Amino acid sequence: MKHFRVNVHIVPRKGLLDPQGKAVGDALHTLGFTALRDVHVGRYLVIEMAAADATAAETAVREMCARLLANPVTEDFEIAAVTAA
Amino acid sequence: MKHFRVNVHIVPRKGLLDPQGKAVGDALHTLGFTALRDVHVGRYLVIEMAAADATAAETAVREMCARLLANPVTEDFEIAAVTAA
Repeated sequence: MKHFRVNVHIVPRKGLLDPQGKAVGDALHTLGFTALRDVHVGRYLVIEMAAADATAAETAVREMCARLLANPVTEDFEIAAVTAA
Repeated sequence: MKHFRVNVHIVPRKGLLDPQGKAVGDALHTLGFTALRDVHVGRYLVIEMAAADATAAETAVREMCARLLANPVTEDFEIAAVTAA
């Protein structure tokens, strides 16, 4: 078993309302960042775990996302990187 | 002015308590993911904006992070990517 670090992005599903992104975008506009077009706010998880290899680590993290980390109705997740640590 | 998409990670500063990461890690352990060593939870922002070039876009986003998006006492931010969109 080796040690892996898996980076995950969890984002609001496209087409659904993203009230947090809207609020952040409005606040930035108020601060004078008028070149802004759109802001989306999601979560970034760094998961450190033991696994036989990188594929096993990614499979385990996909299961974690499906079972606990991401809301399947409103969110999408993507594995951004799997690195040996 | 071109259109850029900037991806930002905002994470709890190393060495500070990360209660959300601790809670997620405990919940995953309870679900049977015992190979887990550590979980960190941060935010992932996708900022779409107009800028003269990629460097100008990154500079603007760094200023947004410093002024609004990241808490300078407890959080670090990094620009993960700047892509023309």
